[in-house]
Amino acid sequence: MDMKEMALKRHFEWKGKIGIEVKIDVDSSEALSIAYTPGVAEPCMAIAKNPDLSFDLTGRGNFVAVITDGTAVLGLGNIGPEAGMPVMEGKCALFKAFGNVDAFPLCLKTSDTEEIIKTIKYLEGSFGGINLEDISAPRCFEIERRLKEELDIPVFHDDQHGTAIVVGAALTNALKLVKKEMDAVRVVINGAGAAGTAIGKFLLEMGVRDIIICDKDGILREGDSYDNKIHEELSKITNRSLVQGGLADALEGADVFIGASVGNIVTKKMVASMNSGAIILALANPVPEILPGDALAAGAVVVGSGSSQYPNQINNVLVFPGLFQGALKVRAKDINMDMMTAAARAIAAQVSPDQLKPNYIIPLATSKEVHHAVAQAVAVAAVASGVARN
Amino acid sequence: MDMKEMALKRHFEWKGKIGIEVKIDVDSSEALSIAYTPGVAEPCMAIAKNPDLSFDLTGRGNFVAVITDGTAVLGLGNIGPEAGMPVMEGKCALFKAFGNVDAFPLCLKTSDTEEIIKTIKYLEGSFGGINLEDISAPRCFEIERRLKEELDIPVFHDDQHGTAIVVGAALTNALKLVKKEMDAVRVVINGAGAAGTAIGKFLLEMGVRDIIICDKDGILREGDSYDNKIHEELSKITNRSLVQGGLADALEGADVFIGASVGNIVTKKMVASMNSGAIILALANPVPEILPGDALAAGAVVVGSGSSQYPNQINNVLVFPGLFQGALKVRAKDINMDMMTAAARAIAAQVSPDQLKPNYIIPLATSKEVHHAVAQAVAVAAVASGVARN
Repeated sequence: MDMKEMALKRHFEWKGKIGIEVKIDVDSSEALSIAYTPGVAEPCMAIAKNPDLSFDLTGRGNFVAVITDGTAVLGLGNIGPEAGMPVMEGKCALFKAFGNVDAFPLCLKTSDTEEIIKTIKYLEGSFGGINLEDISAPRCFEIERRLKEELDIPVFHDDQHGTAIVVGAALTNALKLVKKEMDAVRVVINGAGAAGTAIGKFLLEMGVRDIIICDKDGILREGDSYDNKIHEELSKITNRSLVQGGLADALEGADVFIGASVGNIVTKKMVASMNSGAIILALANPVPEILPGDALAAGAVVVGSGSSQYPNQINNVLVFPGLFQGALKVRAKDINMDMMTAAARAIAAQVSPDQLKPNYIIPLATSKEVHHAVAQAVAVAAVASGVARN
Repeated sequence: MDMKEMALKRHFEWKGKIGIEVKIDVDSSEALSIAYTPGVAEPCMAIAKNPDLSFDLTGRGNFVAVITDGTAVLGLGNIGPEAGMPVMEGKCALFKAFGNVDAFPLCLKTSDTEEIIKTIKYLEGSFGGINLEDISAPRCFEIERRLKEELDIPVFHDDQHGTAIVVGAALTNALKLVKKEMDAVRVVINGAGAAGTAIGKFLLEMGVRDIIICDKDGILREGDSYDNKIHEELSKITNRSLVQGGLADALEGADVFIGASVGNIVTKKMVASMNSGAIILALANPVPEILPGDALAAGAVVVGSGSSQYPNQINNVLVFPGLFQGALKVRAKDINMDMMTAAARAIAAQVSPDQLKPNYIIPLATSKEVHHAVAQAVAVAAVASGVARN
């Protein structure tokens, strides 16, 4: 039985990857009268007087909603809310297993931007944080922006920022190996969807100054006209040397390639045209932009991908459990850039100098330590940047 | 420390009565590749082809949303969604502990009927059933009616039907003690809100023929005019002898009093005016319509209340865990009257003839057997009435 058959078989057997755990005793009338009626009226009245107490008197402070509309699930596209559930449920399992965060999957039967925003606003009072997932671009940008403005709890679109953070961590360590600095390298990002856009903006925060972003129609470049507002915006903050052309033109002399696009789009020749000490992070799933073996053969020094089949898996499972644990711990009202860069640096720091080598630039997602380190760093950054409430 | 102080203290310590349980192994890269990417794409694609498979390939088949808008929480009134959370969370704990149902609390920040309906419709794809809770009348009737029509999964308003079912069970056994038949007694219900209305309609299904319903303005009676549509409807299906007046008039010669109203509204004199073998089920919380001791002193033979302080607690915790377990087990698309009457009879049958006595007409909610019996009976009734899909 191959992996695909096994995955389907297991999902049929499991009938769900998460369930509800009861944390209290309800086995006697006395216990019921404390946890349920009539005793439960006391915490209700306390919260009615001060709604903030819902973080202390209920599970809200550790509840995260993992929300999708099923429009951009994995690389499968718009497969609908029910079909998004296995991913959301898996994500909730990882939230708990790695971050001790109680996350619940909600798959919405609407892809209307305003309806999604409104629905999530209605749900705010039950959760300590919102993790948006697999919502297609460009709607995901507007939904996230509005919710961050209008909600009082942290909102995080993992496909964007989780990916950006783990790429930031991987790049931090890869650059150490090739002895280059963030502010001195040219980074080419292929794909200007949710992930590519977020990676670009995040690397600017991490100190990269020279970024070229390519999309299907070639290099984004200020002065060209764009229907897509995000592309317009990106063209103004990247590619300051106004390079023209396609992906091959962008990669000539570049130090880093980051793929957030589709499989088999980068050739060995393109890699060979890059600067010495080339770094390739080819995230397309299930087939990367270039196979790691081909990239190495063409002269790349460090190669990562989105797949667990190869070394250096750039996996955002490294991010979200600890990130939310840290944010919830201090009751952050936002997940801001300071918290995200702190997360990236904490992940990178989990690979010690003597462990660091071209096929080990990033820790395994199953390492417990990394999630703990991310949580700590994020909590500290939340406090330092003034968004913590506890 | 009294019970109220203890309840508040415990809720502060617990910080939530439920959490998420991970049912699968995610501790290795191999396990992750089956439960999460890339393996998870297989169940996603299978569900995309056939959305019904979400009941088999995810937890949906055992997930219930416990949804409130916080407008009628316990007897506390409109205290808002956050303040409703301790009750919803407690309910979810009981769903799991007694019915092995994975229920999650959602407290909505809107009390607009159409917005609530729409929000729940958007959430349908994540759940196997919807339990509405503590939504004020008359909105709760419209919300439930529309959702039952428009959703393909069972929808149940516990304050109405859970209460009605457990009253039906209690009355079944109480009547055995006084050797009277359902179709030969006069039942007076005080309170024509969500619970009183549902109790009235349910007892008609259970075979009671003579019901008089009183509200604040007196006995509901056909021919009088009502602003409240539900009262208008009730006036046509109850009180066929067209009794006029108030609660005292209604109770004269009646066999059964059921209170779904407020404390201390029934006097000893009223009880004394009832037929011999009087049954009093005084459900108002925390203070019943008449104290059980007073009712007994005035001549009542069987007395139940909503409180665990007295014998015969009429507690809908006896209903919802098993009811949903049974409905989910056969993937019922509705919870219909047949399933509800089956639940009432199953609860009543848990008290054997030799156990039955005036201070023991209904089993304790902490009895595991009763929930199992309810689930079985409900599943059988769902199949027999044609609403089961499995």
